[in-house]
Amino acid sequence: MEKKGLLYEGKAKKIFKTDNKDELIVYYKDDATAFDGQKRGQIDKKGIINNKITNCLFKILEKEGIKTHFIKELNKRETLVKKVDIILIEVVIRNISAGSLVKRLGIEEGIELAKTIIEFYYKNDELGDPLINRYHIEALELATDEELDEITEQAKKINRVLRDFLTSKGVDLVDFKLEFGITSSGEIILADEITPDTCRFWDTYTKQKLDKDRFRRDLGDVESGYMEMLQRITGQDKV
Amino acid sequence: MEKKGLLYEGKAKKIFKTDNKDELIVYYKDDATAFDGQKRGQIDKKGIINNKITNCLFKILEKEGIKTHFIKELNKRETLVKKVDIILIEVVIRNISAGSLVKRLGIEEGIELAKTIIEFYYKNDELGDPLINRYHIEALELATDEELDEITEQAKKINRVLRDFLTSKGVDLVDFKLEFGITSSGEIILADEITPDTCRFWDTYTKQKLDKDRFRRDLGDVESGYMEMLQRITGQDKV
Repeated sequence: MEKKGLLYEGKAKKIFKTDNKDELIVYYKDDATAFDGQKRGQIDKKGIINNKITNCLFKILEKEGIKTHFIKELNKRETLVKKVDIILIEVVIRNISAGSLVKRLGIEEGIELAKTIIEFYYKNDELGDPLINRYHIEALELATDEELDEITEQAKKINRVLRDFLTSKGVDLVDFKLEFGITSSGEIILADEITPDTCRFWDTYTKQKLDKDRFRRDLGDVESGYMEMLQRITGQDKV
Repeated sequence: MEKKGLLYEGKAKKIFKTDNKDELIVYYKDDATAFDGQKRGQIDKKGIINNKITNCLFKILEKEGIKTHFIKELNKRETLVKKVDIILIEVVIRNISAGSLVKRLGIEEGIELAKTIIEFYYKNDELGDPLINRYHIEALELATDEELDEITEQAKKINRVLRDFLTSKGVDLVDFKLEFGITSSGEIILADEITPDTCRFWDTYTKQKLDKDRFRRDLGDVESGYMEMLQRITGQDKV
């Protein structure tokens, strides 16, 4: 699989073309940003850790019948994936109150939600990824009603699988963000990443944060939070 | 009907108790606020105009089978209404793009929406009335799923009735905000007001704004915008 031109560079990843029009290579960077890019930094080895964590979790999801863009890990920072048209909706799933939910609703952090909350955000950096509802999605033609129902069902199933898995590792899945894409054959599959960049992971017993909030909030030990999650998810304690 | 103690003073209205525990008196003030109370002013005779417009529109809605809190207009600024527990959700109905929708979605003002957009906001001044979705409403226990379905259906019907009526008066109903309440017998009914404070009204032909945007945006002729709407809705050209 030959890496061709750079297709897109995001905040945490680069996407390269390959000689197969239906396949891309994802390259995970160490760059970290927060607060709509206002805070910038680097997290040592984050790219290596996030590549490994995403691939491990995507393989677990595939086994449970969730279709993902994962094809094959190529090396420490690169993975071959199916090319998709990304649906411009960030799907956020929340099990415990934290982050923007706490601010929006004026509630305390750390409340176990009686029912999982699902939110849709318009994936648009210029607008600051605003919260949107089904009517907005229809008006913007981001997805059809049927597609949105399918995405919601997949998101709920992914949440169930990941929560079960992480609970067994002593980790609370507080909340996380998913992105979906449509393949050339019209199928909706899970894309992007599932990592400490896109999830809130808390140690079940100490409630220690093991995710990007360590970077956002200057809590220190950022790298070791990521390493801890790598170890719990993959069993691997070196990169 | 005797006016008793002040129950509540809001930005544009005062609510008084009466000697009947199931009835209240609404008093419409001339005070105007915008941008979460950051901009403050007075609009001459607004209270008189808004009392009259709300009562006229609520009577039209009642005739079409929509239940409202309206009982009887008492005088120029005061109306007797049914006491309700206000549901802490502001329901916004949008037919044409304007206001916060334009900013949120990054679209132009004045686009006729292919399908009416409905939005729910958490009625909470301290939090700045944030946009919320059904999951948030459930988590905050603001309304049950069934109540929300009923509110949504009522909002759509109210939109149909008001649009038809206003179209016949040469007015575009761009968007508007509704509040619902629950009576002592458990019935959900329309409460609050429907006025140039809570709606965007545009002249169908000139697209001139005939609502609070004249105040918000310092467009001048604020009072005459309100008077124009009073005249078109009620036929009355003096207060």
